[in-house]
Amino acid sequence: MRDRISHPGLSKLVMTAEQAAAMIKPGMTVAMSGFTGAGYPKAVPGALAAQMEEAHARGEDFQIKVLTGASTAPELDGVLAQAGGMELRLPYQSDPTLRKRINDGELEYIDIHLGHVAQYTWFGFYGHIDLAVIEVVGINEDGSLIPSSSVGNNKTWIEQADKIILEVNMQQPAAMDGMHDVYYGTALPPHRKPIMLVNPDDRIGEPYLRLDPEKVIAVVETDAPDRMTPFAAPDETSQMIAGHLLDFFESEIKAGRLTNKLLPLQSGVGNIANAVLAGLSGAGYTGLTAYTEVIQDGMLELIRDGVIRVASATSFSLSPAGIEEFNSNIDFYRKRIILRTQEISNHPELIRRLGCIAMNGMIEADIYGNVNSTHVGGTAMMNGIGGSGDFARNGFLSAFMSPSTAKGGKISGIVPMASHVDHTEHDTMLIITERGLADLRGLSPKQRARTIIEKCAHPDFQPLLQDYFDRASRESVGKHTPHLLDESLAFHQRFIETGTSLPEAARR
Amino acid sequence: MRDRISHPGLSKLVMTAEQAAAMIKPGMTVAMSGFTGAGYPKAVPGALAAQMEEAHARGEDFQIKVLTGASTAPELDGVLAQAGGMELRLPYQSDPTLRKRINDGELEYIDIHLGHVAQYTWFGFYGHIDLAVIEVVGINEDGSLIPSSSVGNNKTWIEQADKIILEVNMQQPAAMDGMHDVYYGTALPPHRKPIMLVNPDDRIGEPYLRLDPEKVIAVVETDAPDRMTPFAAPDETSQMIAGHLLDFFESEIKAGRLTNKLLPLQSGVGNIANAVLAGLSGAGYTGLTAYTEVIQDGMLELIRDGVIRVASATSFSLSPAGIEEFNSNIDFYRKRIILRTQEISNHPELIRRLGCIAMNGMIEADIYGNVNSTHVGGTAMMNGIGGSGDFARNGFLSAFMSPSTAKGGKISGIVPMASHVDHTEHDTMLIITERGLADLRGLSPKQRARTIIEKCAHPDFQPLLQDYFDRASRESVGKHTPHLLDESLAFHQRFIETGTSLPEAARR
Repeated sequence: MRDRISHPGLSKLVMTAEQAAAMIKPGMTVAMSGFTGAGYPKAVPGALAAQMEEAHARGEDFQIKVLTGASTAPELDGVLAQAGGMELRLPYQSDPTLRKRINDGELEYIDIHLGHVAQYTWFGFYGHIDLAVIEVVGINEDGSLIPSSSVGNNKTWIEQADKIILEVNMQQPAAMDGMHDVYYGTALPPHRKPIMLVNPDDRIGEPYLRLDPEKVIAVVETDAPDRMTPFAAPDETSQMIAGHLLDFFESEIKAGRLTNKLLPLQSGVGNIANAVLAGLSGAGYTGLTAYTEVIQDGMLELIRDGVIRVASATSFSLSPAGIEEFNSNIDFYRKRIILRTQEISNHPELIRRLGCIAMNGMIEADIYGNVNSTHVGGTAMMNGIGGSGDFARNGFLSAFMSPSTAKGGKISGIVPMASHVDHTEHDTMLIITERGLADLRGLSPKQRARTIIEKCAHPDFQPLLQDYFDRASRESVGKHTPHLLDESLAFHQRFIETGTSLPEAARR
Repeated sequence: MRDRISHPGLSKLVMTAEQAAAMIKPGMTVAMSGFTGAGYPKAVPGALAAQMEEAHARGEDFQIKVLTGASTAPELDGVLAQAGGMELRLPYQSDPTLRKRINDGELEYIDIHLGHVAQYTWFGFYGHIDLAVIEVVGINEDGSLIPSSSVGNNKTWIEQADKIILEVNMQQPAAMDGMHDVYYGTALPPHRKPIMLVNPDDRIGEPYLRLDPEKVIAVVETDAPDRMTPFAAPDETSQMIAGHLLDFFESEIKAGRLTNKLLPLQSGVGNIANAVLAGLSGAGYTGLTAYTEVIQDGMLELIRDGVIRVASATSFSLSPAGIEEFNSNIDFYRKRIILRTQEISNHPELIRRLGCIAMNGMIEADIYGNVNSTHVGGTAMMNGIGGSGDFARNGFLSAFMSPSTAKGGKISGIVPMASHVDHTEHDTMLIITERGLADLRGLSPKQRARTIIEKCAHPDFQPLLQDYFDRASRESVGKHTPHLLDESLAFHQRFIETGTSLPEAARR
């Protein structure tokens, strides 16, 4: 293991996770590595949580503010949430224990565009960062760091934190060395320059994270894998959603608005995203590109098969089988995958320039095309907006996808009025369910409503939505975006009161 | 007048507005110049409206689709709306007659980020453009065009339209020649390059609009001023709002997050914007910059006084007194004002790079910081989102400003849930009313609610909002963003039913 720590001074700082965690004090703002379950610290958070629980048992307060790249894993968000150890968390999470705490109102959670987090930190909007805990693959002789399976905000955390704890994780493939591209051309306005990236495979930075070794207070050796991402075969609903999007691509190619190389793909994570990726393979595409956030097993397969020529991301979230495949074909993949900092992977300048095709999941869309990506029933946080806004606002196309119903048919994915809006009517182009695809480009609100109700709504809810729209079109005060405000959120309220959004007469 | 038309071929195409308008046929998509009441065609739309009314009197359909830069004036939107001559209008308007038609549901209106319009046209999302009607200051010998008081989308309309009608307006100051900067480096993805603008005063284009003279079918000479912008002195409420923002700037300078040169200012139009500009002058700032959409009289004064060193915009919306001032000091202003195409003035790449300070009005904000810029009561269109989203999402700061009440105190500018969302909780940093400023940076939803209710709400509505938030915090299903869905829109519904958002017990 020690050959992963080549800097002589830093090798002397190796200690246990418990010793390192003991340097984290109540009230600190602590920035940690981790993006979509990859590259998060494996040992220090657990040791910290144990010390928090001991403090709490003694009747002492012990909470910290935690900033990350995006979601982490039970070993970070889970244990700290379990210990009641976070007073504030940003910018994205997906841990069940943490989610419950957030929705019980037990901590502050700030949901931020992932492309905004680094710059808002530089601007000073989140206050001072006391300490960073960063997982790396290794430490070079000059003190520079080989980034791990995610880059995320690590460059920013290392620069901004007063002190740094490094976790060197032996399980992360040493072969990742050289895959990263850490851009050091950022600046604060008014000193900013154009970012000279024009293709997804352009390298504009350095393979390593710069480090001031004087800031390091501990080095912890770990040997634990990233959270394993189960890679289930896409279900029928996901395949149908993917099918509609793939048909749409074909018709856009026929219309001359896309070529058969499409444009750089951004893909959220999960079943539907996997189905889209699998569908691209089946549809005969080759030589595509991805400019996205996360590379999962499905993306790796597409690269192997030549469907995708090159993929840029900020996180490499692979299953053990994926890591095995990667390790066996290192030289092949290293030429085709680039991991960047998250302010670059999610940068509006670059997403707009490249013309990304943004494909993201949603919780619900309303009939006018406003999309809720975050709040169940308008009040309970699911995960967060992630990068969906960065890509949807600035991409060539923005698609939002969901099954037409949830909770066994009791909730509609299409509602009269979204209970929370993360993507406004100005930013959504395609709404897709397994029923069909609504192409909203160039449509007014009422035209959108007719299209979404017709193409996307489930038959159980379609008559209810049509009736709402018809009555609103007659009775609404303003008829630009017709609404009946006293029943616009009735789908949601009915679910709260009765356990289903279906009215009594429509229940089966 | 003829010395404004130096191209020999085009001078032969001079005809009356009636003759030119007769070439516009029912069903055509017609793109017109005009941005914030500046640089719109003065004669052809009126002649067209008359021909439409004649056709309608004969029982014939005659409607067209109208695309512009932004709002125009009664001579364009007013007359065409009055004639019932538009089946579709985009992307922004502020004409009372047109607004009424939109809200009566009589035409389709699409409300688009102003920074998206040109590229969505290039992408083919709005279909084919049959004809463009463009006001210019003059036609050069080589056929290139001296742009008028707004550039807007004119470059795009001229490139994309099959045929072009030019209006040469003698009233537009010839001295504007040389002030414009028309960028011809745009391309479709995947061929886009960085836009090499790093300061508000950088020139990256050409002073003239390129033109294929073969596309021109008519040249109409006009001699009419732009709609005059009344420049009222800011009222007390606007001055108080401006005062809060100016105090905030001072505290940011003290905190080291801004310098006394601030960052490039973007300012919406209207009373509050004028008050902010006037306040900057009084507060002793000098050498500031503006990277914005519209230059009004107030901005001209600041340039004259050295408060603003240079201003970039896409529209030059001056009163007769402003034009007089400009004409009298041409050489001074020409070095300090640059008019660009609207895809450049509102480009996310540039707004983020420059770190603009975005200052825009709003209709209402909810207690969680979601902002409604467009829809009165969630259903009736006011004007449109304009460029507020381009700047709010990408700027260094995003401020949204409104009096705390409207309609003589019957409506609250702060509501439990916004009835329409144009700017999400992820994009709003400052909410300002005459009562105070809520700084939402780094706050969770519940922290935001407490701040907005305390700082911004009017005392008549403060207890109602606090009571809503308190009960929601106890009873909401999810406690991340507490809401009681069956009364979240009650302020709006009560106004519809009773003419005031105040409940009976609270009325005075």
